Amino acid sequence: MPGNTFGRVFRVTTFGESHGRAVGVVVDGCPAMLELSEAEIQRELDRRRPGQSAVTTQRKEEDRVEILSGIYEGKTTGMPIAMIVYNREYDSSAYEELRFKPRPGHADLTYFLKYGHRDHRGGGRASGRETLGRVAAGAIAKKLLATIGVEVLAHTVEIAGIRIDEVSIDEIRENPEKNPVRCADLAKAREMEERILEAKREGDSVGGVVEVIALNVPPGLGEPVFDKLDADIAKALMSIGAVKGVEIGSGFTSARLRGSENNDEFFVEDGRIRSRSNNAGGILGGISTGMPIVARVAVKPTSSIAREQHTVDLRTMRETTITVRGRHDPCIVPRVVPVCEAMLALTLADHALRAGVIPATRLG
Amino acid sequence: MPGNTFGRVFRVTTFGESHGRAVGVVVDGCPAMLELSEAEIQRELDRRRPGQSAVTTQRKEEDRVEILSGIYEGKTTGMPIAMIVYNREYDSSAYEELRFKPRPGHADLTYFLKYGHRDHRGGGRASGRETLGRVAAGAIAKKLLATIGVEVLAHTVEIAGIRIDEVSIDEIRENPEKNPVRCADLAKAREMEERILEAKREGDSVGGVVEVIALNVPPGLGEPVFDKLDADIAKALMSIGAVKGVEIGSGFTSARLRGSENNDEFFVEDGRIRSRSNNAGGILGGISTGMPIVARVAVKPTSSIAREQHTVDLRTMRETTITVRGRHDPCIVPRVVPVCEAMLALTLADHALRAGVIPATRLG
Amino acid sequence: MPGNTFGRVFRVTTFGESHGRAVGVVVDGCPAMLELSEAEIQRELDRRRPGQSAVTTQRKEEDRVEILSGIYEGKTTGMPIAMIVYNREYDSSAYEELRFKPRPGHADLTYFLKYGHRDHRGGGRASGRETLGRVAAGAIAKKLLATIGVEVLAHTVEIAGIRIDEVSIDEIRENPEKNPVRCADLAKAREMEERILEAKREGDSVGGVVEVIALNVPPGLGEPVFDKLDADIAKALMSIGAVKGVEIGSGFTSARLRGSENNDEFFVEDGRIRSRSNNAGGILGGISTGMPIVARVAVKPTSSIAREQHTVDLRTMRETTITVRGRHDPCIVPRVVPVCEAMLALTLADHALRAGVIPATRLG
Amino acid sequence: MPGNTFGRVFRVTTFGESHGRAVGVVVDGCPAMLELSEAEIQRELDRRRPGQSAVTTQRKEEDRVEILSGIYEGKTTGMPIAMIVYNREYDSSAYEELRFKPRPGHADLTYFLKYGHRDHRGGGRASGRETLGRVAAGAIAKKLLATIGVEVLAHTVEIAGIRIDEVSIDEIRENPEKNPVRCADLAKAREMEERILEAKREGDSVGGVVEVIALNVPPGLGEPVFDKLDADIAKALMSIGAVKGVEIGSGFTSARLRGSENNDEFFVEDGRIRSRSNNAGGILGGISTGMPIVARVAVKPTSSIAREQHTVDLRTMRETTITVRGRHDPCIVPRVVPVCEAMLALTLADHALRAGVIPATRLG
Repeated sequence: MPGNTFGRVFRVTTFGESHGRAVGVVVDGCPAMLELSEAEIQRELDRRRPGQSAVTTQRKEEDRVEILSGIYEGKTTGMPIAMIVYNREYDSSAYEELRFKPRPGHADLTYFLKYGHRDHRGGGRASGRETLGRVAAGAIAKKLLATIGVEVLAHTVEIAGIRIDEVSIDEIRENPEKNPVRCADLAKAREMEERILEAKREGDSVGGVVEVIALNVPPGLGEPVFDKLDADIAKALMSIGAVKGVEIGSGFTSARLRGSENNDEFFVEDGRIRSRSNNAGGILGGISTGMPIVARVAVKPTSSIAREQHTVDLRTMRETTITVRGRHDPCIVPRVVPVCEAMLALTLADHALRAGVIPATRLG
Repeated sequence: MPGNTFGRVFRVTTFGESHGRAVGVVVDGCPAMLELSEAEIQRELDRRRPGQSAVTTQRKEEDRVEILSGIYEGKTTGMPIAMIVYNREYDSSAYEELRFKPRPGHADLTYFLKYGHRDHRGGGRASGRETLGRVAAGAIAKKLLATIGVEVLAHTVEIAGIRIDEVSIDEIRENPEKNPVRCADLAKAREMEERILEAKREGDSVGGVVEVIALNVPPGLGEPVFDKLDADIAKALMSIGAVKGVEIGSGFTSARLRGSENNDEFFVEDGRIRSRSNNAGGILGGISTGMPIVARVAVKPTSSIAREQHTVDLRTMRETTITVRGRHDPCIVPRVVPVCEAMLALTLADHALRAGVIPATRLG
Repeated sequence: MPGNTFGRVFRVTTFGESHGRAVGVVVDGCPAMLELSEAEIQRELDRRRPGQSAVTTQRKEEDRVEILSGIYEGKTTGMPIAMIVYNREYDSSAYEELRFKPRPGHADLTYFLKYGHRDHRGGGRASGRETLGRVAAGAIAKKLLATIGVEVLAHTVEIAGIRIDEVSIDEIRENPEKNPVRCADLAKAREMEERILEAKREGDSVGGVVEVIALNVPPGLGEPVFDKLDADIAKALMSIGAVKGVEIGSGFTSARLRGSENNDEFFVEDGRIRSRSNNAGGILGGISTGMPIVARVAVKPTSSIAREQHTVDLRTMRETTITVRGRHDPCIVPRVVPVCEAMLALTLADHALRAGVIPATRLG
Repeated sequence: MPGNTFGRVFRVTTFGESHGRAVGVVVDGCPAMLELSEAEIQRELDRRRPGQSAVTTQRKEEDRVEILSGIYEGKTTGMPIAMIVYNREYDSSAYEELRFKPRPGHADLTYFLKYGHRDHRGGGRASGRETLGRVAAGAIAKKLLATIGVEVLAHTVEIAGIRIDEVSIDEIRENPEKNPVRCADLAKAREMEERILEAKREGDSVGGVVEVIALNVPPGLGEPVFDKLDADIAKALMSIGAVKGVEIGSGFTSARLRGSENNDEFFVEDGRIRSRSNNAGGILGGISTGMPIVARVAVKPTSSIAREQHTVDLRTMRETTITVRGRHDPCIVPRVVPVCEAMLALTLADHALRAGVIPATRLG
């Protein structure tokens, strides 16, 4: 049973391979009467584009999104919204030697074992290009969430061991797009950048941690007992390529706290119940509390490194070595930032529709 | 849209409240011809029962499972398997004062805000008793996985800051059931126990980390790009009550490693491709590699503590205080262990059926 | 992939075999704050009970429903509602000779071929007793629909070739429960009854047609293009045991009409758009128009007849004969009537929740 | 909750409006290693194209399908297969006057009421052009079914009251593509054609009945108790635009038969159990028996007729009239034939994958 659809009510199906004809997405379940333009989608796609700085890949991808359906006179119609980005002419020759030599840390081996063959060019379906569809759909989800005042933000909190301290919401809103590592702490951003370049010079790569936040989330999103909001967020974020861990609120730190330290006590503010601390990350019993949703993801170091590595030739089943060539991100963390935003937005839009907080059929 | 069902092919729907008439589960999608008895289900249920030691709650719950359907002459028929455990006569009086005073860290507030009222007795639907259904279903999943040689194990790796070092698979198989904290390192187990009792004496609680492992998982489980095996494991584990974080393989640690350290290089052993290290936790590109699946979850300290805490009276919307009475686990970690096993088993059984590795309709 | 769940948002999962321990149902997705009692469920169950007259089976089944979860202080909580009916001590001996001799027209053969074995006693899972769960869930769906003014009615329009003419809504509301064939035309009811008794005397059985209607359905239910309201109604009704055909509005008759005869022209009444005729059966483009929903189902003659029939012994694969003994309905049509109501109610409740016409989380 | 996806394992999502940029489909769940080319898809699309004869619309639509993803070196990869057909430059002016005047029998009114606005041009999403995606996906389903020997055929059995008698399988295979009404009885085909032209001359339209058959279906497809094979076929066929009724096997006729006439007695042939008659239409208890699957659908007369009809102006809510202009099919039945084949093929492919009869992940 296939797995290319995310969400129950706001349903997103991505398709396409890195060096195939196109990548794209169908969004089914967006209510009618939402104003939407290609320019708004394009703006989000531009954020995840490579080639933006020295710390990411130097490949140039000019990704122009085309909306094929579901919009009439500038508004959604309630019908499926299909969006595609045609792939440019790619040079797949660098991938030829990798065809039967699975790269350590990559999906090459498992796709081969599962499906018997694969489109290996540019990473095929397992390429980061697949996230184009997620980000395009996420742009719609964000717009939909904005109709109820919800804002979704992500930023880099750690790269190569360099970790930021507390930052303000305003810094998270404004600073990440000002530096190549998408960090809200501009001083730490420069340190992170240096560490990345250092690793790059050594033919190596580094990982980090991204924090993703949603503000103004109304209480009541999330469905007990399996489709808890935190469970669905964990799935959404863990489904991003390089992510190996997800925590909500105080997360792994809470495992070391006492109950008296970790519990968030309630009080009343402006007639609404709030908590003084937010170790819960805005979710109790799988349902949003009204406090900010806070999650963090662990991003592993990029698997494609310029060093020789041991692998196995799939034709001969003999051990061999490979050296991954081509222009790869020495650190994927900054490019994971907009994808985390997209996945959190998709999850929240889906749950807002499930709970009826956003109307299922049409706005206004 | 409700959320009480887990899985796509091996579909598990739990029902029931802590002090209601019964808790139970319907398992739809178990193939026919699996030998199955109530005794096998009971054995797993007995592991999650409270009252087993000083470090868990002293409540006595004699939970007798009854299989209502789906078995004929000792074998599954391919029809839904309904299982129930009747709740004994409970004293709900201790919960009376909590009815309109949501306990910090609990689901009380969010259920009230979402549904307008709730069965507050014993935690109602958000009680740990709901996991009875998960464990009963997990017992079937484990049996099904055993037909293809898969073994699922969980153990406590950290409590209150006490962390174990490396342990062997044999220690993980044998030691956890020998000590009240379900730790494979018996010396560390005693330390953990002390810390729990210390917190208990102080009217407080502690958290910890559970590791869950699956051995002999065939390559090829997991469906790109959203229903990745790690994404579904993350959802499964994060849906457990007190869990606030999930990591796969080297997880958050990988965020601090270099690519050259984190990549698992391939070699050939007995005609199969394996990797020397297993930082990936047995999953690449969302698909199992054939190496052991390894995940860890952060368990927060029990929210029910014997100390006065600030909250809000939902009738008056005025601030007030509560002191949670009753016999609560000062540390829930040991009881989360069998639930983690159940959730990993449910996820793997579902994916084994999805991939056709276990036949969908009948065995043999 | 199993198929024991119906609905997307109002999700109904039935379980149980005819001579097993119990039959039952879990309803997940009923919004909170609906008043609901066991007595209301029981009332609907009593309507489908056998032993009510000479034209149905003489078996006595005293089916007492028990609600296990999801209700607190007389109101739904938004949690799954599990309901069970324990099976009484049945005499399964009459089924012993049928164990390896599949009855023509029954599911015996196909369950055996698919699952390798089956609970053959009393028809097992394929027994009409499975519809107990449907009717119990349908009772909740009806109550939910009543909150928006929707009324669901069914009646027998044809048995053994005896067909009624036009009847009024009032006759459909009042007459069916006054006669054993559940026909709104009392004169025709007597004719139908005679034909059934005639067939019974001859060791044979007859079929018929049931009409099911929903009044006051708001416009806008149904989701293009696959989950059209008529498509989902067709599935719902065709999933009932003996049903072999479903038509909406003028149905098969429309195939013989001209467009100018079949089109329903629009006019305005009380500020709402209505149509003079209702050949569409209340649905255009898969979406409800606001006119009454009208569907009819073809019910085949009962497969269990007291005549010798040819079959095959599954052990020897040799041809043999069987004579089905026991007390079977010579005509199942009257007992299909409440099941049709239940299935239409389940479909409409699901779509009303999908469209947000009934709030997903809680009423009021 | 949206409804543009069909199937559970072989998942088909269509998108696009009649006069929008493109129509298309994403097929998720096709196993890897199926040989597939654009030419094979195109062949099926050409069958549903308008402008083929005097009895269908004279519009010219040159529909060129483009496969965007999921195929590598001529074989499926197990990844989603996206296919699109760009819409040519359409003249939408004829639809301008219909924008606020819903056509009787069409989806215009209900889309407007549900979504608040709609792309009215060419029927928008409710246009027959949407079936392009179904037929393209159906072409893949047919190819997949062919790997297990299943053949799907449809033909016209009645138009405007002209009904065929028995025809042979060979006639059904060969004759329909030889005449404009797709009838296997060539003499009756001419009569049907005349009746259509007669209606056309009178500015009117006619309906009919299509039969769809699947041969060599293995026993065991279909999932009790809701996802019965006949229930899913009923949904699939009823989801086609003009279809108002579905029957399986002897269908509505069975309602007038005695049990002794309708039951299909079993015998053994070539070591397999078969039945002498096939009133069941190849399905018992919702599961395929191994006999041919037979279904028939009632197709209403085309709603677009050249006569003046009463309707309501949606802006003023006053009654008015419309005359539908443009080149419309006076009888849609012949063009429904390939769509019925597609929908039956999609249903059977989905169930073959669900039952594991076709491997879920890869062929061979």
